[in-house]
Amino acid sequence: MEYKIEKKMEGALGRAGVIKTSNGEIETPAFIVVGTKGSVKSLTPEQVSSIGAEAVLANTYHLYLEPGDEQVKKAGGLNKFMAWNGPTFTDSGGFQVFSLGAAMGKSVGKIATGEEIAEYTDEGNFGGKLAQIDDEGVTFKSFINGSEHRFTPESSMKIQENLGADIIFAFDECTSPMAPREYQIEAMNRTHRWAKRSLTAHLDVRRPSGYQQALFAVVQGGRFEDLRKESARVLADLEVNGTKFDGFGIGGSFVKEDMATAVKWVNEILPEDKPRHLLGIGEPLDLFLGVENGCDTFDCVAPTRLGRNGCFYTKNGRLIISNSKYREDLTPIEENCACYSCRNFTKSYIAHLFRANEMLGPTLGSIHNLYFIVNLVKKIRQSILEENFEEYKQQFFASYK
Amino acid sequence: MEYKIEKKMEGALGRAGVIKTSNGEIETPAFIVVGTKGSVKSLTPEQVSSIGAEAVLANTYHLYLEPGDEQVKKAGGLNKFMAWNGPTFTDSGGFQVFSLGAAMGKSVGKIATGEEIAEYTDEGNFGGKLAQIDDEGVTFKSFINGSEHRFTPESSMKIQENLGADIIFAFDECTSPMAPREYQIEAMNRTHRWAKRSLTAHLDVRRPSGYQQALFAVVQGGRFEDLRKESARVLADLEVNGTKFDGFGIGGSFVKEDMATAVKWVNEILPEDKPRHLLGIGEPLDLFLGVENGCDTFDCVAPTRLGRNGCFYTKNGRLIISNSKYREDLTPIEENCACYSCRNFTKSYIAHLFRANEMLGPTLGSIHNLYFIVNLVKKIRQSILEENFEEYKQQFFASYK
Repeated sequence: MEYKIEKKMEGALGRAGVIKTSNGEIETPAFIVVGTKGSVKSLTPEQVSSIGAEAVLANTYHLYLEPGDEQVKKAGGLNKFMAWNGPTFTDSGGFQVFSLGAAMGKSVGKIATGEEIAEYTDEGNFGGKLAQIDDEGVTFKSFINGSEHRFTPESSMKIQENLGADIIFAFDECTSPMAPREYQIEAMNRTHRWAKRSLTAHLDVRRPSGYQQALFAVVQGGRFEDLRKESARVLADLEVNGTKFDGFGIGGSFVKEDMATAVKWVNEILPEDKPRHLLGIGEPLDLFLGVENGCDTFDCVAPTRLGRNGCFYTKNGRLIISNSKYREDLTPIEENCACYSCRNFTKSYIAHLFRANEMLGPTLGSIHNLYFIVNLVKKIRQSILEENFEEYKQQFFASYK
Repeated sequence: MEYKIEKKMEGALGRAGVIKTSNGEIETPAFIVVGTKGSVKSLTPEQVSSIGAEAVLANTYHLYLEPGDEQVKKAGGLNKFMAWNGPTFTDSGGFQVFSLGAAMGKSVGKIATGEEIAEYTDEGNFGGKLAQIDDEGVTFKSFINGSEHRFTPESSMKIQENLGADIIFAFDECTSPMAPREYQIEAMNRTHRWAKRSLTAHLDVRRPSGYQQALFAVVQGGRFEDLRKESARVLADLEVNGTKFDGFGIGGSFVKEDMATAVKWVNEILPEDKPRHLLGIGEPLDLFLGVENGCDTFDCVAPTRLGRNGCFYTKNGRLIISNSKYREDLTPIEENCACYSCRNFTKSYIAHLFRANEMLGPTLGSIHNLYFIVNLVKKIRQSILEENFEEYKQQFFASYK
């Protein structure tokens, strides 16, 4: 993997660049489409590609359980397995550790609200949870059949090597933004030890095969400025046998107003010449803040999840297709949108598909939302190249409610 | 609508021809893809078109209930509503009268097995059923909310005019093949009276608008040779103000071994210069029999329904993707198949999609099955043009188990 900066923003951390992988290039900033189980939900790779998406991120935890990383390897790796003709990422499984463990049963997403956070408890055992963390790794139960499994930094690397994505992540522990400072320190230090073990394991596996996967470390530290900065410094400097990380992920679940600040703390420290991925963030306004504060790539399930459920992005905010006023609306989801759904179908038709439980509804909704988000980030990129990011941001924020 | 025969088979009723509509041509024999609610399940019109499908058949009953035929009319008609750039058909609602009435709660398809037939009862009331037939029309309850509605030949024509398909069907009563002779006679005569009322109503509505929809009558008569022949004769000759039907549907639910025979009885009588549609039939072997015995077009939900449920057509018969042996099978559903699914994906991947409940599984299965059936009928057409139908049929029957 190579990364090259094309243009930097004046007075902010944002930049436009290019990530080159052996499976193709990603022009950054870029939104990476999520294909959790090796499929972008409800879409063919052909449709994903025609939306303008350049890369796909799949989930290590899910593919390990089903169909198994060995099976994906036999199929020629993730790229060939899912017939995706472009770069791929796999996450480390760290977020699942969080969502199955401390956050189990709570609706904690990557951006938490005050109410969700208030519920936070730090139960470090299996009592009602599906994951238990210790210093060596994580023991968890399969969401499919309850069978017990174990992830360690070494096994995460082995699994991600089998999956064969172009960009992979060190095994980390994702925490709630409301976890107490004491626990954040403990988890961060564990994440750093796991990062070192991940890098060591990765060097062991990648050298003999000759296949070069890029390995990104994941910065943690919760809401605490000193911890976020420490995590960035430690991981930026971390070196095993002369090799450092190829790039960085910024992890953790964020309180909405903290996200941009936390990202800035981190990116001011991370080396400029390596790409930075903001894990699990993809709401329109957050993308502007993430880019402005120095992130290059983003992934998020929101565009497809919302699209499948009849909630569509427009430049004026979200549109809920089940609203009865759309039953007779013969205009597209968004005027002048060039996506397949808007070029061909009316709100009235799409509202009908959702009411009639036709699978084409979720497909058209996912196409529109992904097109909206992927192309929003492309336009942000363009605004950096044309030196009018701030103007574009102000204009977008003024209309998006 | 125009119909032109290009080539007739020697010693059989089959023929190759072309149906011309104002929305494009259909080269016959042809399989018409079913889009019950104005959507071919799980596929975009672009995907349906790339499969090679030339026309779509939608359901009058379903579209009347949701989103309403007036709404489809406002959208510019079925073709524009669903963004289908080709000819369209709507059925009359007659089959729903059967499936909601006499066949309610039984798994009676278009081809019945002995067991299903043994359960037949002729209950002409609402006791547990959703439809009640009288001489004027049918009263039925909505499957959506239980509200009561009424179809008559006149209202079916009005609804189908609003839907605006190129080819529409006279309102008929579909019967079980096991209904007693007495009831078959009663239902057939009612179908004939309704055909006349449909033609009368259609002349009233189509002349002022100037838009010419082709109206097909539906031949009934169950398993009885004399009744099938009588129905064909009556409908072939039926004339209102100098206008006859533009084509014919062959309706009813068939006992498997009767289908070809019944179709032959009918097509020997129907005028040669008008197209004949075999309603609800689409299994591979039945398509050969239907073509050979003089049918030009076919529709059936089986390819998409089976495809959505992981059951795929191959030249050697059906393949059930949930079979554990396919988990590691890195070959396509069918070697040398040129469909999008087989060109890009392995059985192993598609098996994974179905196990993981990924919507892409049903989509890829539907693409393969529709491609298989649509192109099977295209190959049958080609064999008629090249005068080797019998050879092609023997070869196909020998391998398809």
